[in-house]
Amino acid sequence: MKEDDVITLIRDTFSSVSEDVKLSVGDDGSVVEVEEGMELVTVLDTITVGTHYLPETSSDSIGHKAIAVNLSDMAAMGAQPKWAHLSLSIPEAEKVWIEKFIEGAKALASKHGLVIIGGDTIKGPEMVALSVQGLVRKDRYVTRKNANIGDLIYVTGYLGSAAFGLHLLKSGLNEPKQCIKDFNFPVPRVSEGLFLSDYASSMIDISDGLQTDLSKLAKASNVGFSLNIDQLPIRREMLEIDSEDAISMALFGGDDYELCFTIPKEKRDEFEQKWHVRFNTKLSYVGMVTKSLEQYKYNGQDYMIENRNFEHF
Amino acid sequence: MKEDDVITLIRDTFSSVSEDVKLSVGDDGSVVEVEEGMELVTVLDTITVGTHYLPETSSDSIGHKAIAVNLSDMAAMGAQPKWAHLSLSIPEAEKVWIEKFIEGAKALASKHGLVIIGGDTIKGPEMVALSVQGLVRKDRYVTRKNANIGDLIYVTGYLGSAAFGLHLLKSGLNEPKQCIKDFNFPVPRVSEGLFLSDYASSMIDISDGLQTDLSKLAKASNVGFSLNIDQLPIRREMLEIDSEDAISMALFGGDDYELCFTIPKEKRDEFEQKWHVRFNTKLSYVGMVTKSLEQYKYNGQDYMIENRNFEHF
Repeated sequence: MKEDDVITLIRDTFSSVSEDVKLSVGDDGSVVEVEEGMELVTVLDTITVGTHYLPETSSDSIGHKAIAVNLSDMAAMGAQPKWAHLSLSIPEAEKVWIEKFIEGAKALASKHGLVIIGGDTIKGPEMVALSVQGLVRKDRYVTRKNANIGDLIYVTGYLGSAAFGLHLLKSGLNEPKQCIKDFNFPVPRVSEGLFLSDYASSMIDISDGLQTDLSKLAKASNVGFSLNIDQLPIRREMLEIDSEDAISMALFGGDDYELCFTIPKEKRDEFEQKWHVRFNTKLSYVGMVTKSLEQYKYNGQDYMIENRNFEHF
Repeated sequence: MKEDDVITLIRDTFSSVSEDVKLSVGDDGSVVEVEEGMELVTVLDTITVGTHYLPETSSDSIGHKAIAVNLSDMAAMGAQPKWAHLSLSIPEAEKVWIEKFIEGAKALASKHGLVIIGGDTIKGPEMVALSVQGLVRKDRYVTRKNANIGDLIYVTGYLGSAAFGLHLLKSGLNEPKQCIKDFNFPVPRVSEGLFLSDYASSMIDISDGLQTDLSKLAKASNVGFSLNIDQLPIRREMLEIDSEDAISMALFGGDDYELCFTIPKEKRDEFEQKWHVRFNTKLSYVGMVTKSLEQYKYNGQDYMIENRNFEHF
């Protein structure tokens, strides 16, 4: 496929009908209108073979993942995703590969009302950089910075499952299927992030592992935390195989794309109640914001965490 | 350097003081305020070694070029660049390489009030994707689409010089220096683009060579053109070496990052007069928009263009 054909395919796939897009794919840039009273949130994340997915990965998974990692960042800001720009670098523009890539991207993007309105394709090493723009009501974005001592720490979904899925793939295994799916087709928590903008004092998405990302949040907020290892949400299939490895993966495994956030104590009841009315997404209370230090507990006892380096690229 | 150190370096280098940036480098995303009455223009361009620059290129040129190619797209929209997001993929985070890269990017970005407010760095093949966002007054952006029959075609600067510079570099030559500079440090026509939003009916930036890009503009506008080869702006140094090759490079050479645009006949006098008051940038009238077909003339006679494929990666 020629670059122009790829661009035509993207344009036809994501043909925007929304009125806020004035100019889409096919010119030097895109033009959109930003609604009054809203602020613009932008994220840009890149994925490449060998670092974020395996060489034999089907391109619909790559398309899905490029969208997912960016939507996850957007979710962590509490923002509504709107428009995307795609930079696609591939050594050879194989038609089937590109069509499946766009299919995977489209399926996830459409679910969240996201349209691709610009970007470029070049001949080069396989790499996908995607930028997503979204909107948030003025001053309502959520950062990593405002966790307060005493706030409760929550996470969405299951942790470590994607890391286990990667391990399975690298070992040539294909069970449990759910873990492989969690690695290949992560689910960004977009609606949850939007909802959380009314409750969370701080938020981050878990892309590098809970321990790393929670530490970043704590550092940005200038606080510490106490994490209850026994409350980490871990898939039963993983615990049954090896519970110590499962904990290590839940703490240190990457690619979960779940949200980790803090809720002021006084909002807890209302927050949990409304969450369960709106979402089926698993919600786990896993710890508390403290003055300083990073502490790990297991059933109230001090716990030594161990990065077994079980699973990494 | 670790990823965090790179991010810190970028944050410190581009520390934004502008009030419209609410959240910059260091969180999951950036947040900016878009002024009322303005529309948001976004461009995303990627450069990679071997396709856009030579392997031995100094990283300040790579940083400059990543900014330049995007600012050139922004200029072609008639928009004011504001904010950038950088995706930097490098096999190894060498401190000196990164510092020079940021130095090159910063020098050009600062000149146009552009700040880097987000992005990511990953370990992977050398590649730089950069997204630039800018603003344009409501409905004042310029596209490729609205050239009208009878409009006059202009280009800025000199054509083919970057292609000749690349040829020199590949041949191990270092004269004429200006051509090498045109290739390594192209000058995006940002102020000119902004000015042109009041005059041009259509505009494109010349990144793939005048013939290719003017054809794209004509196709998007559903018109043809007549191009006067004898009026193409070509550096004297190039014409002196081989005038036929020089013409071929001016028509087919890439990486010029000049603007090509159309001006309605009745605006010609005012436009040219104001241009020369405001800019020293070379301005060349090179042809006219016609009903259909692509015609090439030399001193009024039909001219057969020839792509000598003199210079390409």
